[in-house]
Amino acid sequence: MSGEASEFEIIRRYLAPLSANEPGAFSLTDDAAIIKPSNGCDLVIAKDALVAGVHFLKNDRPEDIARKILRVNLSDMAAMGARPVGYLLATFWPKDITTGWIERFALGLADDQKRYDISLVGGDTVKSDNDMAFSVTMFGDVRQGTQLRRNGAGVGDIVYVSGTIGDGYLGLKSSLGALPQLNAITRDYLEKRYCLPEPRIELGQRLTAYATSCLDVSDGLLADLSHISEQSGIHIDIFLKQIPVSDAAQQVLGDGMANETDLITGGDDYELAFTAPRSQSHRIQEIASDLDLQLTAIGQVKEGEAVGLIDENGTRVEVSKPGWVHF
Amino acid sequence: MSGEASEFEIIRRYLAPLSANEPGAFSLTDDAAIIKPSNGCDLVIAKDALVAGVHFLKNDRPEDIARKILRVNLSDMAAMGARPVGYLLATFWPKDITTGWIERFALGLADDQKRYDISLVGGDTVKSDNDMAFSVTMFGDVRQGTQLRRNGAGVGDIVYVSGTIGDGYLGLKSSLGALPQLNAITRDYLEKRYCLPEPRIELGQRLTAYATSCLDVSDGLLADLSHISEQSGIHIDIFLKQIPVSDAAQQVLGDGMANETDLITGGDDYELAFTAPRSQSHRIQEIASDLDLQLTAIGQVKEGEAVGLIDENGTRVEVSKPGWVHF
Repeated sequence: MSGEASEFEIIRRYLAPLSANEPGAFSLTDDAAIIKPSNGCDLVIAKDALVAGVHFLKNDRPEDIARKILRVNLSDMAAMGARPVGYLLATFWPKDITTGWIERFALGLADDQKRYDISLVGGDTVKSDNDMAFSVTMFGDVRQGTQLRRNGAGVGDIVYVSGTIGDGYLGLKSSLGALPQLNAITRDYLEKRYCLPEPRIELGQRLTAYATSCLDVSDGLLADLSHISEQSGIHIDIFLKQIPVSDAAQQVLGDGMANETDLITGGDDYELAFTAPRSQSHRIQEIASDLDLQLTAIGQVKEGEAVGLIDENGTRVEVSKPGWVHF
Repeated sequence: MSGEASEFEIIRRYLAPLSANEPGAFSLTDDAAIIKPSNGCDLVIAKDALVAGVHFLKNDRPEDIARKILRVNLSDMAAMGARPVGYLLATFWPKDITTGWIERFALGLADDQKRYDISLVGGDTVKSDNDMAFSVTMFGDVRQGTQLRRNGAGVGDIVYVSGTIGDGYLGLKSSLGALPQLNAITRDYLEKRYCLPEPRIELGQRLTAYATSCLDVSDGLLADLSHISEQSGIHIDIFLKQIPVSDAAQQVLGDGMANETDLITGGDDYELAFTAPRSQSHRIQEIASDLDLQLTAIGQVKEGEAVGLIDENGTRVEVSKPGWVHF
């Protein structure tokens, strides 16, 4: 891939086609793109940085890496209640990247663009001696004034979480070879949950009408809930036995290869955690049923500060390390 | 900088204050920010990726690195004729980064935020074993339908460039120790031009009324003009002797330490190159005078394709390597 035109050739061959549905992307030929919110909407914008060995594994399939970096950002759109529209992509490729790798990576992008109805609108590609890294800037529409925030949880609200918690963490452990005892089905399920999270976009949009606070769980359930606690100025009690756990994770717990606090501090869930008034609990059940998605009440909002964890005996549990720490 | 809260502490102490003027940034407490174009405007959005050793030098002052990564992106806004408004920042920091370094980096951001009236609205920070790298997503307002593009150059148009060409390239060479003969004043001038480009934002906004195409010169004047040629479907003739060169660069040329084609293929200029109809040349002069900025006619647009270079004898010059190549 040496030769003077190769950056432009890569853009033309593999990336420009990904912008075909978005006229404001100008087929990636210009210095910048034009974006507009839909009528009556504001633009929500988020940017995540992802590095090999931290957010994905260097030997993951290129298609899966592409889809994961989009999904992590789509999860931010979900957390704000936004409908995702498009994204800009900065790729930091190592010098020995092959055209074949980039082609497969672009196929992964195309796949999830279709799935989530989004379009590439711009970005930049560089090569360096570094390991692979990416930065995605995702934007979407949210009806003016309805975006979900972290600061609206009120005393008496119920705390909910979507899906199951801990699968991503166990999937990462398994991918790194730390859970060799797992059977193939369990291993595949957990590793897929790490590798390809499911951003809860429809849920986020439905919640704009009912939730008082919302975020996506990426650093670990407890650590992320502490942001809601802090921003809303309230205390949150979580009941350990109510945390939804998949059959696969249950099996790992049963075998003693991890414990419950690992699951709620591990991160990489990309589920939504949110609060809603008790009076809306039938609405939340309705959404769960419409979307065929498990939504579990796991705690409640009280006066005070911080997040408390309560075991099946009603005893407060201490957690020394509330979540994944980037630094 | 170990300890569980340090990423959040860094954001709170050094980055959140940089978002204080932008309510839609939510003080960097949420998963995403809200942005809106001003009345009658569209949003222009651009994203550049920057790596130590490629786009800046690892030992540059942290303040200067911060300002350069903003200015490279501001230059994209200038190229589109947009008024910059805000940016998202992804930082890939090496594991041994110090709080002192980050503090100085944030001071540099604050400095240029004030200078260019922009605000941080979001982003992400990660640490890894990689060398330092950044991705900035800059956005700005442009009055609907007036954005400058690369595809409008017409036969008979004049080709212009702002400022002087080649200083950035020579500044990089000097910073790398390749021009030890330079006197201190010349060296400082050139190295500063590399280290701290001046995005031509006011120029870009003024040109929306007159220019038929525009871009910023980052990869080398010839290589970048070839994008205008290609997108507009025209040929461009450039007159080598009309290329504006600073006194400092003139001195390097005089000493035989570089030649003229080095200057137009070297890159890192962050000047604007643009085309305008001959009938608007008095307007272009007016803008040059209003902004106290050199705007030089360097060539003309003809039927055909590609970019040709003509020396003082009217002879066509061959250039083997038209510009900086990322890959």
